[in-house]
Amino acid sequence: MIIDVHGHVSAPPSLMAYQGGLIAARGAHGKGGTGATLEQVRDSHNRPLPNWDNKSHIEHIDMAGIDRQLLSPRPFTLIHSEEPASIVKWFCEETNDIIKLAVDAFPDRFRGICGLPQSKDTTPDQWVAELRRCVTELGFVGGMLNPDPMEGLYPPVPAMGQRWWYPIYEAACELDVPLLIHPASCRPPARENYSLHFITEETINLVDLVNSSVYQDFPTLKIVFCHGGGAVPYQVGRLNAMGRSHSSNALFVDRLRNVYFDACLYSKEGLELLFKTVGPDRCLFGTERPGTGTSINPATGKYYDDIAEVVESVDFLSAEDKAGIFEGNLRKLYKLESW
Amino acid sequence: MIIDVHGHVSAPPSLMAYQGGLIAARGAHGKGGTGATLEQVRDSHNRPLPNWDNKSHIEHIDMAGIDRQLLSPRPFTLIHSEEPASIVKWFCEETNDIIKLAVDAFPDRFRGICGLPQSKDTTPDQWVAELRRCVTELGFVGGMLNPDPMEGLYPPVPAMGQRWWYPIYEAACELDVPLLIHPASCRPPARENYSLHFITEETINLVDLVNSSVYQDFPTLKIVFCHGGGAVPYQVGRLNAMGRSHSSNALFVDRLRNVYFDACLYSKEGLELLFKTVGPDRCLFGTERPGTGTSINPATGKYYDDIAEVVESVDFLSAEDKAGIFEGNLRKLYKLESW
Repeated sequence: MIIDVHGHVSAPPSLMAYQGGLIAARGAHGKGGTGATLEQVRDSHNRPLPNWDNKSHIEHIDMAGIDRQLLSPRPFTLIHSEEPASIVKWFCEETNDIIKLAVDAFPDRFRGICGLPQSKDTTPDQWVAELRRCVTELGFVGGMLNPDPMEGLYPPVPAMGQRWWYPIYEAACELDVPLLIHPASCRPPARENYSLHFITEETINLVDLVNSSVYQDFPTLKIVFCHGGGAVPYQVGRLNAMGRSHSSNALFVDRLRNVYFDACLYSKEGLELLFKTVGPDRCLFGTERPGTGTSINPATGKYYDDIAEVVESVDFLSAEDKAGIFEGNLRKLYKLESW
Repeated sequence: MIIDVHGHVSAPPSLMAYQGGLIAARGAHGKGGTGATLEQVRDSHNRPLPNWDNKSHIEHIDMAGIDRQLLSPRPFTLIHSEEPASIVKWFCEETNDIIKLAVDAFPDRFRGICGLPQSKDTTPDQWVAELRRCVTELGFVGGMLNPDPMEGLYPPVPAMGQRWWYPIYEAACELDVPLLIHPASCRPPARENYSLHFITEETINLVDLVNSSVYQDFPTLKIVFCHGGGAVPYQVGRLNAMGRSHSSNALFVDRLRNVYFDACLYSKEGLELLFKTVGPDRCLFGTERPGTGTSINPATGKYYDDIAEVVESVDFLSAEDKAGIFEGNLRKLYKLESW
């Protein structure tokens, strides 16, 4: 079986219409909502998606051999840098409620990972209530954390190794759920689009986290970095040389094993480097499908995010390694052994 | 023979003392200078370096099997974000003059790559004169370009694919010298130190450049990205999928071959990924030694930047590939066939 840690909800069009109204009115009309029903959310995962070859979300994951998928909000839609903070919170809650409907509509395919109301004008203690609601009331299995709620605006919040973040780490440990690290949008005059911003923010925050004392302070914290950890596995030699002074005396690459990674990389060479650098036991299958990789690679005639067969073809992985990547590591980390 | 594209001058201590005075007085004392002599600059490459095991620059490159090295300023010292612009210009000129003395002291070991007076309060047309002076009067073989002269301050200048940069590209084409892309320092509240900032800036600017029309506008432009191109080769699958809309219809990975890369990566897996992704004919040997990688890897007992033997051990490279990486590609690009 293949379980994908990195899926984003395909919400009904009413969700982005709701967002448009929130931003236009800046909250003047109150929270409101989409009124989305379970039937509408089932349909939004079964309807053809114009951006992705007019195939549905369910068709796409079927084509990619994905049996089950954890669904989080589409990160770039979360408007963390919009004002006022109330519209960020309302949109986040509405998105999480739609993910809950998706899980109810497809209980054998989906489990929920919640977005957090990370308005740039809030602090992590203000995000805990929504994580708690989603885990304890809606049955979600984890939260998604954007390391740059400023979305490229200045100044950035402190990086993830700093005490500023501790309230949300405390809550994740208490609830015993992983935090999936996935940046969101990116605003001009920053020079990268949101999809490249994922890579730069993952790089900066993963290095800061691994060089910090966070894992000494929270030994049970479970963190999963998306997109194979940005630049980090490729630059690990440099980071080993730079990170000589950590209080633990352990090499950077060894401390990196405190963290988990999704295998959301769209080249075989990249995937092999990830597995070799962090170890296959730290990797979770992840595609983001349908998403950035859902286009045809002219060199192979296949979708870039058809990762399963690429992982299968890596000759230095044992059958046990592959089973861990495809489902075992995720089942253990997310306590989904019986799903 | 091994020629290293990525060396930084080991200047006499008077250079950083000069910088301290410039910043403290904000230029009130005029340009002044170090008064460094050829003898002093010879000595500064032969004296023990306290940060690097008390071995000299020459001893270090000898130990690493580096026969010849292109010397550029130590990028993090270039104070591009300091004010006023005059002190940035004066310090850059003084540094370039010291590099010229190093080349004169060791003509069989060094050639010069100049820094540019990239004050954040200037534009690229104001950097051309120093590039021209160094190439035509001092015999330098190229220039070094910092893609982020704001050094992490806000807002950033446009990325390297934008017309803002065109005056320096025009000059580099006219003088027929390569530009070595190497970020410099990084100021709080940015969350990364300067050495990690290299990686994030290389990533952002390389992607912007390759997705732009710069190479259509400047077909003879020669650009070398340091540190193996940041995150780009590792994330190339994602970048292929993201970069579908370029006017040339060529894949991102194919357009990447407009650019050259140094092999300044301190792991075998990283180096192999670079060679496979961009092709060995686009790679130049580079160590940064003595620099960030000049510390002992406890796993091997060798310096991280002992790259030559790692390149030698890559089994899929032919003898011709290796000769190209070690010297041939650089000799051709920098017109140093007879050195």
